[in-house]
Amino acid sequence: MNASAPSLHGIVLFAHGARDARWAEPFERLADKLRALAGPDTHVSLAFLELMEPDLERAVAAQAAAGCSSITVVPVFFGQGGHVRRDLPLVIEACRAAHPTIEIRATVPVGEDDAVLDALAAYCLRQLGMAG
Amino acid sequence: MNASAPSLHGIVLFAHGARDARWAEPFERLADKLRALAGPDTHVSLAFLELMEPDLERAVAAQAAAGCSSITVVPVFFGQGGHVRRDLPLVIEACRAAHPTIEIRATVPVGEDDAVLDALAAYCLRQLGMAG
Repeated sequence: MNASAPSLHGIVLFAHGARDARWAEPFERLADKLRALAGPDTHVSLAFLELMEPDLERAVAAQAAAGCSSITVVPVFFGQGGHVRRDLPLVIEACRAAHPTIEIRATVPVGEDDAVLDALAAYCLRQLGMAG
Repeated sequence: MNASAPSLHGIVLFAHGARDARWAEPFERLADKLRALAGPDTHVSLAFLELMEPDLERAVAAQAAAGCSSITVVPVFFGQGGHVRRDLPLVIEACRAAHPTIEIRATVPVGEDDAVLDALAAYCLRQLGMAG
């Protein structure tokens, strides 16, 4: 590996999934925003819990194949349902076992973050016509 | 009705619901933030699509009983699944029929809002240790 090449970081936006393909649109927009902000040394892709592809293990494998030396999985969920609470840690462990040279972690789900909740509250206030 | 009393506005934060009661915690935190920001003339409550109570029609009825002259339903969803896309407009119509003197509307789901997506992108960047 070229020692002077910058490290490639991966972000996998992990969402629930649905039958209707239109459901994924906001996540595609989020991925686009992230690509623009994070720059060329960051790979951004989507993964889904069910009904849509790729699943998380396949998304991580694709990031690994693209040369990412670290991968951050961001659960784009509001509440932590059973899948996120129980199953996600197991899938992360499986990914680490499959890619032992890559640093792989999952963040807390976006809906648990205080600044995200502040942004949601501001959205609500704007909808009421109040400053937000 | 006292003509000099301020109008009471209602916000119903409409979320999916889950079996585990802990799932609702972020929504409770969001409701608290909103109450602090919106002030005493705004009622804030939660409603759920399934598995948790109250459902949306009951939450709207409670806001009406509390004296709200207008009620804004905010779907706290990322993607618009079939329930939000197809069923929510029907429930809003039913609420309007049940409460004809109250102005009732639903906003676009939070995950469709550009500023909300910007906040989510910023969260992702902070998780990577980049400014966000």
